[in-house]
Amino acid sequence: MKADRPIGVFDSGIGGLTVIHALRRLLPQEDLVYLGDTARLPYGTKSHRTIERYTLQMGELLQRCEPKLIVIACNTASAHGLPALQAVSPCPVIGVIEPGAEAAAEQPGPVGIIGTLATVSSGAYEAAIRRHDPAKVIHSVACPLLVPLAEEGWFDDPVTDSICRRYLNQLPFEAKTVVLGCTHYPTLLASLDRCRPGTRWIDSGLVTAKAVDRLLQGSISYRTASARGELRVQLTDASSRLKEVGNRFLEEPLGDVEVVEI
Amino acid sequence: MKADRPIGVFDSGIGGLTVIHALRRLLPQEDLVYLGDTARLPYGTKSHRTIERYTLQMGELLQRCEPKLIVIACNTASAHGLPALQAVSPCPVIGVIEPGAEAAAEQPGPVGIIGTLATVSSGAYEAAIRRHDPAKVIHSVACPLLVPLAEEGWFDDPVTDSICRRYLNQLPFEAKTVVLGCTHYPTLLASLDRCRPGTRWIDSGLVTAKAVDRLLQGSISYRTASARGELRVQLTDASSRLKEVGNRFLEEPLGDVEVVEI
Repeated sequence: MKADRPIGVFDSGIGGLTVIHALRRLLPQEDLVYLGDTARLPYGTKSHRTIERYTLQMGELLQRCEPKLIVIACNTASAHGLPALQAVSPCPVIGVIEPGAEAAAEQPGPVGIIGTLATVSSGAYEAAIRRHDPAKVIHSVACPLLVPLAEEGWFDDPVTDSICRRYLNQLPFEAKTVVLGCTHYPTLLASLDRCRPGTRWIDSGLVTAKAVDRLLQGSISYRTASARGELRVQLTDASSRLKEVGNRFLEEPLGDVEVVEI
Repeated sequence: MKADRPIGVFDSGIGGLTVIHALRRLLPQEDLVYLGDTARLPYGTKSHRTIERYTLQMGELLQRCEPKLIVIACNTASAHGLPALQAVSPCPVIGVIEPGAEAAAEQPGPVGIIGTLATVSSGAYEAAIRRHDPAKVIHSVACPLLVPLAEEGWFDDPVTDSICRRYLNQLPFEAKTVVLGCTHYPTLLASLDRCRPGTRWIDSGLVTAKAVDRLLQGSISYRTASARGELRVQLTDASSRLKEVGNRFLEEPLGDVEVVEI
């Protein structure tokens, strides 16, 4: 890994900006290139075959910026496209499932997973958690409305609370640890926590940022520049609403957005 | 228009199956080819440029079945892609906006439009209604959560009622006629009507089926076979959930689905 190359981060849309936010805090000196497939989002309702194909295309597009590492900052794409992209990518590729699963496996007792339809139906979290703890009891719930709710921005809202409660009530009481298996979900954390107080929430994006930190440390390929790294944002489609939502997810202004047509 | 050719119906996903349902009832002898762009749905959050490009690609794909007529059974694609497709298509193309607008213009008093972000921001309904009645007072509200709610199938549900009420309350009381400016919305009609009883709802899909009937009648290109016409369903992606949702929208079994990769 060449230290002065950027980290490439790809997502099906803008949810992965929560991972960028975590990376910018943890590794402020790194240059980041974010690529969001907003022309085809969401991936969470699509088939394995299509998600895998899209993941490979996005990985190829990211190669234009010669990344030292690619982070798939999308649970759905990680669940369905990670092995295929790892098999062809000239640089290392990590997804958000393995770090989230590792963090969940370390916690005592049964674990809950909430995610998109495609993530939950893949069984990727179950497989990854059981590699660490074969006896772990795992309960998964698909929550198709949470992504559109997060994008609509109805935070701190009784309707959002009702929807979160309905999904979370499908998890047994004993599951005190719940993985936020979609990078949109951290923006709904206040609501989720109101519906299930005392839960240990695992933010898959946050633990992935920590995994990136460890990986770079191990290979001594930290960027050594003292200046704050640059963030380039590329999207396959730029609608007027995206900037507004993007600012919220990134927790800083999104800046200029390049449109990369696919 | 050659009578024995099918009618091609295209939608961004499966919402247009409500238009197919109406066409099958009104024109049972016609062969129908339905093409849903499920690999890239929804269109309602995307930009004009991208929606127009997708609409042209879908129109081109439909030409493989040599349709006598293409119906864009999607409000968003009609709002952004109809003129471009009409300009290049070898067969006539009609969208759902014009029939819905005409029906709305005929009603007395102010009119409300509910639709996706892209449909509402296009101003296509306003422009089309004002071609019939330049003085019409029109109020539009984007309802981003209604498509995912319809796909989640939470009908007859207090959460759905709350969400419908929040959107509909943005329309002034005087708007007694409201256009369902998205082909998903008829499946939520019970909930919408509970929130705004006494409203005259215009189902853009239903009035479009009637417009197709009039168009075929005018050109004497009805299919004369006495047998019930065939329905072919083609999707650009087939996830496991689609059949279930599709059956609900079509109100009959979806049958075999062909996957056409784009």
